[in-house]
Amino acid sequence: MNYPDLNIPKTKSKRIVILGAGFAGLNLAKHLRNTAFQVVLIDRNNYHQFQPLFYQVAMAGLEPSAIAFPIRKVFHKSKNVYFRKAEILRVLTNENTVVTNNGDLSYDILVVCLGAETNFFGNSRIEAHSFSLKSLGQSLGIRNQIFLDFEEAMFEIEYHNRQQFIDFVIVGGGPTGVEMAGALSELKRYVIAKDFPELDPYEIDIYLVQSGNRLLPGMSEKASRKAEKYLKNMGVQLVLNDRVSDYDGVYAYLKSGNKIRTNKVIWAAGVKCPVIKGLENFYEEGTGRITVDSSCKVIHASNIYAIGDIAGMSSLVYPGCHPQVAQVGIQMGDYLAKHFVKNMLNNRPGKPFIYKNKGVMATIGRHKAVADFPKFSMGGWLTWMIWLWIHLFSLIGVRNKLIVMFNWMWNYVHFDSSLRLIIQQESRNPTQSSKEGN
Amino acid sequence: MNYPDLNIPKTKSKRIVILGAGFAGLNLAKHLRNTAFQVVLIDRNNYHQFQPLFYQVAMAGLEPSAIAFPIRKVFHKSKNVYFRKAEILRVLTNENTVVTNNGDLSYDILVVCLGAETNFFGNSRIEAHSFSLKSLGQSLGIRNQIFLDFEEAMFEIEYHNRQQFIDFVIVGGGPTGVEMAGALSELKRYVIAKDFPELDPYEIDIYLVQSGNRLLPGMSEKASRKAEKYLKNMGVQLVLNDRVSDYDGVYAYLKSGNKIRTNKVIWAAGVKCPVIKGLENFYEEGTGRITVDSSCKVIHASNIYAIGDIAGMSSLVYPGCHPQVAQVGIQMGDYLAKHFVKNMLNNRPGKPFIYKNKGVMATIGRHKAVADFPKFSMGGWLTWMIWLWIHLFSLIGVRNKLIVMFNWMWNYVHFDSSLRLIIQQESRNPTQSSKEGN
Repeated sequence: MNYPDLNIPKTKSKRIVILGAGFAGLNLAKHLRNTAFQVVLIDRNNYHQFQPLFYQVAMAGLEPSAIAFPIRKVFHKSKNVYFRKAEILRVLTNENTVVTNNGDLSYDILVVCLGAETNFFGNSRIEAHSFSLKSLGQSLGIRNQIFLDFEEAMFEIEYHNRQQFIDFVIVGGGPTGVEMAGALSELKRYVIAKDFPELDPYEIDIYLVQSGNRLLPGMSEKASRKAEKYLKNMGVQLVLNDRVSDYDGVYAYLKSGNKIRTNKVIWAAGVKCPVIKGLENFYEEGTGRITVDSSCKVIHASNIYAIGDIAGMSSLVYPGCHPQVAQVGIQMGDYLAKHFVKNMLNNRPGKPFIYKNKGVMATIGRHKAVADFPKFSMGGWLTWMIWLWIHLFSLIGVRNKLIVMFNWMWNYVHFDSSLRLIIQQESRNPTQSSKEGN
Repeated sequence: MNYPDLNIPKTKSKRIVILGAGFAGLNLAKHLRNTAFQVVLIDRNNYHQFQPLFYQVAMAGLEPSAIAFPIRKVFHKSKNVYFRKAEILRVLTNENTVVTNNGDLSYDILVVCLGAETNFFGNSRIEAHSFSLKSLGQSLGIRNQIFLDFEEAMFEIEYHNRQQFIDFVIVGGGPTGVEMAGALSELKRYVIAKDFPELDPYEIDIYLVQSGNRLLPGMSEKASRKAEKYLKNMGVQLVLNDRVSDYDGVYAYLKSGNKIRTNKVIWAAGVKCPVIKGLENFYEEGTGRITVDSSCKVIHASNIYAIGDIAGMSSLVYPGCHPQVAQVGIQMGDYLAKHFVKNMLNNRPGKPFIYKNKGVMATIGRHKAVADFPKFSMGGWLTWMIWLWIHLFSLIGVRNKLIVMFNWMWNYVHFDSSLRLIIQQESRNPTQSSKEGN
């Protein structure tokens, strides 16, 4: 049954409703703990997920729980923060109300931080058959399919049929595609080769398809060249200046006319922001993001803000928009919390948000990473170590840091993580599964 | 496509086909590594699962990967052992052939070790609506439902409706039911109470229903009394001399006439052995197990053996059958490997199997456990420590031991494991899920 305001008490405090517990939303809520606001955080999951390491979950290097953190645990000691697990259906801006699948919730201030999702550029056949990597659930889905398919390959005598199960096509040469291709190559050499001695590892092909003429187009030329060299040495087949134009679940069709037989196309070719009903008018046509001013306030709205990947803020340094990376979301969350506490409560205008670019990194494999820092680029062993430490310390919670560190050290020494288990949740009966899978 | 003999080469060695990679089957296969036999191990999963700790996975204390081990990794250095992930459909004893969902496989010797599954005693309504704990997938299913339901409870103002989501009924007072009830009580006090401050923890009821007049009927009176005292002190509501006669998904109906409103009935009231097509005649009617002689050979069959829970061997000490516990399976696996290598290859008769009872234990919670050893019984803190060490050292793999130890130490210090994440695998699209869920 649905009750008013999602069963959250009405107090004298201003209510800030935060949609989404990604980097931006969780960070904002954390900084609003024990302040004069009532904060309601809504997410479809009961955990915050650390997206930069999804690919390691997909490649059986980490368990999902190592890079996820229960949202409620963050707010154990904060009486002013409420969490509700719900799906956002619509925003009624005239009534200052959010409509969810569990009922309505009124707000004084609304902050939208629902991130970005996979962009299939309108190709519904590709969408239906390919995998993407925008949630822990999807990452687990990729992992399970990889190992199911290798088991399946054991029953196939002819190469043509086996190819379906053992070849991979990764679409998109950005950081996600590059990191996935590198990790997949290591999985092939260190794990698959030992687990499946009946299989010739040279049969396993990993294709990385990039529409432009270089990998990591958002990084420096130097980083691109280095990443390409690394991946070639690791046996990844780079397909530049081409795109996957169609995929029917059996063949991936390239624009150049080639086709690749595979059961697994992993789509990392682009993102788009979800369009929330009731907020359509606030989106900018070109970027597909919600246009905000320099204080993250949505243009033409008085009490709605947007931060993170979904926020389209144009500034002097970033005349288009900010890059859709974790650091922007984190910094916007920090900024907006301060803005609310210091300026809004005291009716002061406040300073504009300025993004501090701390650099961009991508790891390709053991001892191999590339980085562009504001003043210089680097690559190799030291870069890889820096990448490891930065990601370790960015994780929420001491337990997660320790578990990830243990896993990385174990894998480093043993070349093997033992996580290649095809474990799927079982529901009590088939008719329940649709309800549980919401 | 299906190929003869599941794509396994025909050699001069005798082929032993092992059905099931539980304690019995995996142990047998391990001891047959690098022997003169060709060994084919078949399981529906690509991992061995450590059943005694399922309840800790269900109660968010451990990750599934911590108590599962990839089967292929066990046989990295054994060229004579083949693994195939497949479902057993039927055995054609006249043709010495096993029929699987992936094709047929001929055998010289067949060893059946397919364990036991949940027994709902023919009540299909209970089976459809309740949870059981016989696989890691089911354990994850329970965990996710618990936390989904608590999130759902946040939207319910009236106790009557909330009760559906926050009350638990555990059926069966054996070790599984007792351990689950204890762990659930700790979850309620240490995690739920902190995560859901809006909820009154006294509202959360945990019922443990046992048809007999005492818990742990397989153990000593002393152990039963102690377990009952522990559980009562932990707030578990014991319902003795009663049974759940029906469950419609909303109310659990007790034989005494009472009913309990709950979304979660966890059924741990009994097990039965799966009946394999083609082997029906070898089952004993009373026990429902496959009758074997003192060397684990199936009576009336010349080249078929059965070990573990499914084997019904009557002996002087155990005139009925052996208890269906891990130790029997492990010892039978050890015994049969020796019997095959030492006696069968040399055509010697061999000694009969004798089960060495090392004792029975059950843990109820922090510092609380009971144990019956062959010569004495004990309970309390020391028993709990012994339980921890025995289970730790029984796990396969150094990594799993370290991870479980880390988790237990972390939980011991922090009263919190951070594993309450409702993570469900996502398939690429709905029409694929049935295929993937096989």
